Amino acid sequence: MLSGEFGVGTSSPMELIDVTSQLQDIIAKNNIAQGLCTIFNPHTTAGVTINEGADPDVQDDIIGAIRRIVPSDYPYKHREGNSPSHVMATLTGSSVSLFVAQGQLQLGTWQRIFFCEFDGPRQRKLTWQILSG
Amino acid sequence: MLSGEFGVGTSSPMELIDVTSQLQDIIAKNNIAQGLCTIFNPHTTAGVTINEGADPDVQDDIIGAIRRIVPSDYPYKHREGNSPSHVMATLTGSSVSLFVAQGQLQLGTWQRIFFCEFDGPRQRKLTWQILSG
Amino acid sequence: MLSGEFGVGTSSPMELIDVTSQLQDIIAKNNIAQGLCTIFNPHTTAGVTINEGADPDVQDDIIGAIRRIVPSDYPYKHREGNSPSHVMATLTGSSVSLFVAQGQLQLGTWQRIFFCEFDGPRQRKLTWQILSG
Repeated sequence: MLSGEFGVGTSSPMELIDVTSQLQDIIAKNNIAQGLCTIFNPHTTAGVTINEGADPDVQDDIIGAIRRIVPSDYPYKHREGNSPSHVMATLTGSSVSLFVAQGQLQLGTWQRIFFCEFDGPRQRKLTWQILSG
Repeated sequence: MLSGEFGVGTSSPMELIDVTSQLQDIIAKNNIAQGLCTIFNPHTTAGVTINEGADPDVQDDIIGAIRRIVPSDYPYKHREGNSPSHVMATLTGSSVSLFVAQGQLQLGTWQRIFFCEFDGPRQRKLTWQILSG
Repeated sequence: MLSGEFGVGTSSPMELIDVTSQLQDIIAKNNIAQGLCTIFNPHTTAGVTINEGADPDVQDDIIGAIRRIVPSDYPYKHREGNSPSHVMATLTGSSVSLFVAQGQLQLGTWQRIFFCEFDGPRQRKLTWQILSG
């Protein structure tokens, strides 16, 4: 078992940050041939997801849709004012699991791994673990 | 560690396809007694979920509700026109994890594993991996 | 590989129940130093999520928001009347994955693990598995 973490800096209140190459670099540097790779988000107002990376408009549309699903103009109880970000974290999920084979993350043709910032900008991090089986 | 993939053909723009017996067959054929089973969806306009399989109305209600949560009549930026399907993929998630014990998938009484088609009909696939621990 | 289950009693139609200390106790009692911990919810009208545990208002806001995202006043087909709960189960997800290191669940500062009741009150359970790698 190998594990670690890396930083993710965000520059907007809400955005998707592609972290796929950082993960692929970790796999290469550690000579991991195969295994189960889990990426975990330790923040309560952020998430992690896998979606299309080719057209940045898709990322904008995802952020826009999530904003409409969890509107900010509602009298939430939590005084810190970021309850929508907490709801978005639960809708998106706190981890993704994917496979490594022949030293490569096994993603579909259009898939990339994204850190989801819902309450930025902030300095964030992701943690990862690979079980070689 | 064992891994593989299988095809899933869909026949509607949006539908849930029960893939539980295909997975159970894989476990039986490979004589897997126990482990962690991960099912991964490599598509960006589809998902995978675990929910009730007994009454098909539940599947229709889930599809209907997701359609209302992510409406199609919005001026999305992505020109391909399937942004709602990408949003649905992120809301549903790209993988499910469950346990195998005594050679059986450990599902609750009413649970079944479903491929979620959000941009069909298409020929799709799911990938799987089992870590025996 | 270690696995087991524990009961979760709920007292409201919808609520989040913090189960973090039950899981940490399991890890301590079994002397688990490191691994991948998966928590699985075997029910189709409940979920499991990781979110903030410090301010109970966050939990109330999450429940309230999910209720508005999946309204109950819609003519669902499923006769049992709990279709919204099934939709919520799919939006939240059926499992969470997190890491164990130095005998401790590796949660972020504000994170706690919650059973999500969407069709209570009921006597429920969660199952868990830890792969030591």
